[in-house]
Amino acid sequence: MSEYFPEIDEITYEGPDSQDPLSFSYYDPEKQVGEKTMAEHLRFSVAYWHTLREDGSDPFGAGTMQRPWDDIDDPMEKAHARVDAAFEFFEKLGVPYFCFHDRDIAPKGEDLAESNENLDEIVDHVEEKIDETGVELLWGTAQLFMEPKFAHGAATSPNPDVFAHAAGQVKKAMEVTERLGGENFVFWGGREGYKTLLNSDMGRELDNMGRFFRMAADYADDIGFDGQLLIEPKPKEPTKHQYDFDAANVMAFLREYGLEDRFNLNLEANHATLAGHTFRHELQYARVNDALGSVDANQGDKLIGWDTDEFPTDVYMTTLAMYEVLENDGIAPGGLNFDAKVRRESFEPVDLFYGHVVGMDTFARGLEVAHELREDGVFADVIDDRYGYDAGIGAEIAAESTDFEALAEYALENDGIELESGRQEKLKAVLNSYILES
Amino acid sequence: MSEYFPEIDEITYEGPDSQDPLSFSYYDPEKQVGEKTMAEHLRFSVAYWHTLREDGSDPFGAGTMQRPWDDIDDPMEKAHARVDAAFEFFEKLGVPYFCFHDRDIAPKGEDLAESNENLDEIVDHVEEKIDETGVELLWGTAQLFMEPKFAHGAATSPNPDVFAHAAGQVKKAMEVTERLGGENFVFWGGREGYKTLLNSDMGRELDNMGRFFRMAADYADDIGFDGQLLIEPKPKEPTKHQYDFDAANVMAFLREYGLEDRFNLNLEANHATLAGHTFRHELQYARVNDALGSVDANQGDKLIGWDTDEFPTDVYMTTLAMYEVLENDGIAPGGLNFDAKVRRESFEPVDLFYGHVVGMDTFARGLEVAHELREDGVFADVIDDRYGYDAGIGAEIAAESTDFEALAEYALENDGIELESGRQEKLKAVLNSYILES
Amino acid sequence: MSEYFPEIDEITYEGPDSQDPLSFSYYDPEKQVGEKTMAEHLRFSVAYWHTLREDGSDPFGAGTMQRPWDDIDDPMEKAHARVDAAFEFFEKLGVPYFCFHDRDIAPKGEDLAESNENLDEIVDHVEEKIDETGVELLWGTAQLFMEPKFAHGAATSPNPDVFAHAAGQVKKAMEVTERLGGENFVFWGGREGYKTLLNSDMGRELDNMGRFFRMAADYADDIGFDGQLLIEPKPKEPTKHQYDFDAANVMAFLREYGLEDRFNLNLEANHATLAGHTFRHELQYARVNDALGSVDANQGDKLIGWDTDEFPTDVYMTTLAMYEVLENDGIAPGGLNFDAKVRRESFEPVDLFYGHVVGMDTFARGLEVAHELREDGVFADVIDDRYGYDAGIGAEIAAESTDFEALAEYALENDGIELESGRQEKLKAVLNSYILES
Amino acid sequence: MSEYFPEIDEITYEGPDSQDPLSFSYYDPEKQVGEKTMAEHLRFSVAYWHTLREDGSDPFGAGTMQRPWDDIDDPMEKAHARVDAAFEFFEKLGVPYFCFHDRDIAPKGEDLAESNENLDEIVDHVEEKIDETGVELLWGTAQLFMEPKFAHGAATSPNPDVFAHAAGQVKKAMEVTERLGGENFVFWGGREGYKTLLNSDMGRELDNMGRFFRMAADYADDIGFDGQLLIEPKPKEPTKHQYDFDAANVMAFLREYGLEDRFNLNLEANHATLAGHTFRHELQYARVNDALGSVDANQGDKLIGWDTDEFPTDVYMTTLAMYEVLENDGIAPGGLNFDAKVRRESFEPVDLFYGHVVGMDTFARGLEVAHELREDGVFADVIDDRYGYDAGIGAEIAAESTDFEALAEYALENDGIELESGRQEKLKAVLNSYILES
Repeated sequence: MSEYFPEIDEITYEGPDSQDPLSFSYYDPEKQVGEKTMAEHLRFSVAYWHTLREDGSDPFGAGTMQRPWDDIDDPMEKAHARVDAAFEFFEKLGVPYFCFHDRDIAPKGEDLAESNENLDEIVDHVEEKIDETGVELLWGTAQLFMEPKFAHGAATSPNPDVFAHAAGQVKKAMEVTERLGGENFVFWGGREGYKTLLNSDMGRELDNMGRFFRMAADYADDIGFDGQLLIEPKPKEPTKHQYDFDAANVMAFLREYGLEDRFNLNLEANHATLAGHTFRHELQYARVNDALGSVDANQGDKLIGWDTDEFPTDVYMTTLAMYEVLENDGIAPGGLNFDAKVRRESFEPVDLFYGHVVGMDTFARGLEVAHELREDGVFADVIDDRYGYDAGIGAEIAAESTDFEALAEYALENDGIELESGRQEKLKAVLNSYILES
Repeated sequence: MSEYFPEIDEITYEGPDSQDPLSFSYYDPEKQVGEKTMAEHLRFSVAYWHTLREDGSDPFGAGTMQRPWDDIDDPMEKAHARVDAAFEFFEKLGVPYFCFHDRDIAPKGEDLAESNENLDEIVDHVEEKIDETGVELLWGTAQLFMEPKFAHGAATSPNPDVFAHAAGQVKKAMEVTERLGGENFVFWGGREGYKTLLNSDMGRELDNMGRFFRMAADYADDIGFDGQLLIEPKPKEPTKHQYDFDAANVMAFLREYGLEDRFNLNLEANHATLAGHTFRHELQYARVNDALGSVDANQGDKLIGWDTDEFPTDVYMTTLAMYEVLENDGIAPGGLNFDAKVRRESFEPVDLFYGHVVGMDTFARGLEVAHELREDGVFADVIDDRYGYDAGIGAEIAAESTDFEALAEYALENDGIELESGRQEKLKAVLNSYILES
Repeated sequence: MSEYFPEIDEITYEGPDSQDPLSFSYYDPEKQVGEKTMAEHLRFSVAYWHTLREDGSDPFGAGTMQRPWDDIDDPMEKAHARVDAAFEFFEKLGVPYFCFHDRDIAPKGEDLAESNENLDEIVDHVEEKIDETGVELLWGTAQLFMEPKFAHGAATSPNPDVFAHAAGQVKKAMEVTERLGGENFVFWGGREGYKTLLNSDMGRELDNMGRFFRMAADYADDIGFDGQLLIEPKPKEPTKHQYDFDAANVMAFLREYGLEDRFNLNLEANHATLAGHTFRHELQYARVNDALGSVDANQGDKLIGWDTDEFPTDVYMTTLAMYEVLENDGIAPGGLNFDAKVRRESFEPVDLFYGHVVGMDTFARGLEVAHELREDGVFADVIDDRYGYDAGIGAEIAAESTDFEALAEYALENDGIELESGRQEKLKAVLNSYILES
Repeated sequence: MSEYFPEIDEITYEGPDSQDPLSFSYYDPEKQVGEKTMAEHLRFSVAYWHTLREDGSDPFGAGTMQRPWDDIDDPMEKAHARVDAAFEFFEKLGVPYFCFHDRDIAPKGEDLAESNENLDEIVDHVEEKIDETGVELLWGTAQLFMEPKFAHGAATSPNPDVFAHAAGQVKKAMEVTERLGGENFVFWGGREGYKTLLNSDMGRELDNMGRFFRMAADYADDIGFDGQLLIEPKPKEPTKHQYDFDAANVMAFLREYGLEDRFNLNLEANHATLAGHTFRHELQYARVNDALGSVDANQGDKLIGWDTDEFPTDVYMTTLAMYEVLENDGIAPGGLNFDAKVRRESFEPVDLFYGHVVGMDTFARGLEVAHELREDGVFADVIDDRYGYDAGIGAEIAAESTDFEALAEYALENDGIELESGRQEKLKAVLNSYILES
């Protein structure tokens, strides 16, 4: 049996107590946090594309990654080796879920039929490994952006044969996801957008995208896939403008095409910041719109204008993200998928462990802090105190039992308004004290 | 009678033929462009706040503007002088419309009652000037951001007395707009957003904002105001996050609260770019969502991170904006309001003419080019040729008479997809040839 | 005697142990960190302009701040009251330094002569308070941006009378700084830049700026001011382009005009990020160019395009900033000046304490972590191991004893280069473990 | 003989007079503009990497470009075919110059020796084509970023073998450039920067970069290469921070290491905007620092955060760029190199013509407008009038014959400063009138 990776405790780590073996500092799947274990709260997942397929190339440089399966030439043989490596990695890391695109796990064939055959063969292997290891499929998806045929879009392509091809690919990917027990199916429209409006008709393209999602939902029903359907927003890469710009944009779309009951959102930290929002903003926006479905756990560099997909290491971000997840009463059936890649310069296999371990620990610590903040009612109390809509004129407003006429009369008689400080500096100090001290 | 401004032809301008008097190079209200005159197409408006009230201060500097009415001390007397100056300016410039906030035209009083009295007195004066000059009111609005009481929001304030105050102010501003024959009423929620989520509840605030707009629409019906109601999106100034982030965000909001039939969008060029979109994007997005209501005609500096509200001078932008307006079959009852201010360093009264003239000319030229492009079918033909949804499988998709099963079967049999070039470089060359040559 | 502020322990603070009085969690001036005390390392300073003068206004809103001296009408009387309040605040906070602009402490007069008189009178008062309290002046500066006369620049104004005025103002401010024992004098050229190149001659303006700094240095020598002279970079606010864009830009300027021996840099976190750099980048760049002079301790919002001047609360940022300060063998005679303001919505006097306390604590914690990281050689060891310029061909390169001919020959014979992983993920994990665990 | 491309007039173009063959609207190499021809002013160059090598791949998609030489398998045979195709394209387009990296024209071998052999063989071919066609080499450069060995930098790599390899490669590329009569040699340090400061020592890396440039200059002298040496700034791609961030940063570096007399700047429009500057800013900054060497003629999308390298189509940008070139008394021995690529969706060979033709025309039109603006003294007169440093106190400042003492005295007596408006709106109107009307 092949051994692609070391055990985690064979890897050196310099912490405050130098040269210890690598281990988790915060993440402990059995640890109880409130009424659930950490594993139940966090539902971590490894992204097959980044961890098993990423080669480290960028627009100015060739691939750098050193992967033990690189010297296998035959594409199908290599794909099988990757499946073995993947599940070995999942187990050694101790992660309960993974996610994949159809084309991540099996090579594209000469045509769609051969691609489907390749996929079926590899899915057999994946199914065996799932049974063997107990690692489960968080979500599947179809890769509708890499092939040249998607250059002008998939569901939004001006060419209907591309629309049909995309439909065929999603149909197959959904069947495979269902077969593997996937709990969700994700749509990221990597080429659903435009490069220039000079040659585009946004109205037609949005209508077609609506039709595509409607058919996808119908097909899920047809085959009895009862997993969550998720749309992943991203603002402007690789196209100039992606139709699924941010959470709000997707909500506008879903409501226009009557799809809001069938689709939720898969939100990514780096996509949030590229759209000009904090990650917490996108999570809260989705939550209050009853659409928070799953999370792509990564982080970006706010001084860099593209998707860097870094492993999450910022405990402020993970704390506030987990706060929203707890407010949402959990993220299941979604999870926290590490849509994150090691840097091009971190090309050794062990770097994959460093990346995932710091990501899992940072989210585990964030969970603990968020839980304490909620247990102590720190922010909830402040917010409850601030809003005055439980009595008096406020209650009438909340009950929608007043109107401008009455409110204007009230305002004329109640002009001496006294506000209270928003206390942002104090609240940030409190947040720091929970993150650093407790 | 006071004379605040020179005649336009008393102002010197250096063009290719140096030292000519200032005049319009492209804008001619009577000129026929297709089936309408330029005046009917463009519906230009002067923004009272920038042109009559802006003092040139910025966060690091005191006011610089030299205005002939500056030496009047009494606030109401000064407000009356500004009304005279405003209409003198409108007439000398030759602009058919203006826009204002309640607090632009009349000073805030000690309380809401006195503010209303001040407003009534000045509105009498404005009404006389409208009758006298024929210059009309494009839209009115209520200023719900300047006073300290709005620090935490107006309709989204945690304090219901502020909500009531805002309601009282909008009620009055709407009455005044109706009385002056205003064709639209605009809502820009300058403080509707948050400074930090640590003390905020987005769900409660959005619900209250929904209630506020519902009551506003009801009150418009009550008083028989049948003008267009407009929401103006802007992403993140002055708050960290404005709820009305961009066009798509507002559409999601309107659909959530059932307001989409009653409200349209007032879109500003500089707000579009601050949200990461081209102006044309926002206009087209609104158009295909049946919500393009009116335009704030200005431009920003894409290398600067705040709202610079410059006069529009970029003929590429105005051409593509007018293209969308023509595709929308016009902008009426909305218009093109110059939400633009002369630079802090352009502090002389004549600079107001330079700014508006270049803005009007740049939009007039943009209109001409856009009209020619449409007459020649330049882009429409390209777009019609690109989309293949009129026959075959494309027509079935468009008719929603197919499904994933059928499409997948089709895709398996039609794998050799040939795309055509998007021709972006050629289309930009064509656009240039129309802008520069014709 | 007036009492403007409460004692710090009369202020409530909710930490993990709720409702405790406000106190420092990390900052203890006496605490030894390595060979210095925290007070010696950190050299905190309060910014007079933000803390005593900021009124909370922004481009869309009036002032909100509630300050106990607001009801004093006479400008000089109010200025005196502010001096008392300032030193009361410094003492209650326990901060050893403050900084000011000439116009912060004393009101502008009718002309320069009267402004100078006002300044002299207030400086007498300040001097008494310095003597009385032991709080010292970290740096003084001249405000050359607020008055309309500086609209086109100060030293870079096209109008030489403005250049002369600026010279007069700096001369006086420098004398006053010398008299008060200031350890540094700072130049932030708030209007030294351009609004448009269409009317500007960058070459002339840079030459004049060079002349101005030369004369300033000469004048410092003339009056025996031996404090550090500092230039503060900032990229693009309030002008479109500030000449002192970032640290590198200022170094290019200083070297061109032969000023690099006389001037160092005062670096601000928020200015760094507005220029597209991390704060650490700017600090390290200055350090390796022997020009790290002082620090403006604040933080910005990287999703916001202007200078938000927030109190520093991000312990990652403060840790890496203090790391550079320690690498620099300290920041003296510079210091850490809180060029930070409470939010417009944090309008109560106690918010000034919350802001400064969280800032001081976050920097104190950052100091501790940075010190430990250096003690343990965590990053230094990694860096020493990575660079191979101590022996072999590397040593020849470092000694500049080789050339392209020899290197090419070497390269032809040594082609099998093996790199080592950059280990970014691991290093971020280590950083987290020091910040969160130790 | 192979025919890779159609003649330019066999390509269809829709202008105002629809369906004309493609032709230049403004560019006419013989046309006299002032004392030079357009060809002498513009010195256009095709970039071998984009036009002959770009395959249309991006981080989310495979290559799309259809190139007639794609079906050749042998790398050297394909490289030869590309040389033929290149010169055929240069001639059909009518462009006098080209630029290349060593690895663009010849494939990398198994080791440096074989790479050099490959290069020599292809350079023979290139030399023949230069002789045959008269198309000349504007500049050569070495590709020090694509190979994995450069992952941590080239001259700034921690590994000295990489430094040596880079030296060997530059040595060879410089020899080849000299042999082909290249007029310039360019350094773009694609990996000279850092991915994280946690593992980097900026000081050591900058010192090594200084050493590398010094040796490069020495080697140029050794072999008698008297072309211009150029550094090309770029802020943050592909690394997080490129050392040659912008023009000012490079000037600081050159001055620190005493290299400013030997190196000038090659400035790119898209790199300027990524650094937060207008292209004109970078050009003027370099010009007034006597360092404007050459131009990479392209444009970016200011709403997109990476280098899009689009063909220049914005006549405002080209007008202001050519204005600076004319102020610089021309760009020779540099030129205007189209560091621009057709969009991934513009995958047909004819798109290469559309891209270059619109780029050449847009710069030709910009040249004409800039020339007229200078002939008419439009901006020069405004600027001359604005600056008052020819007489009085201004002249004393300019002559450096005054000091703060004298200036302060002057300022006390001359307090009533009157500024004049900056007239930005008027100047933009004038610019528009020249671009659109003349």
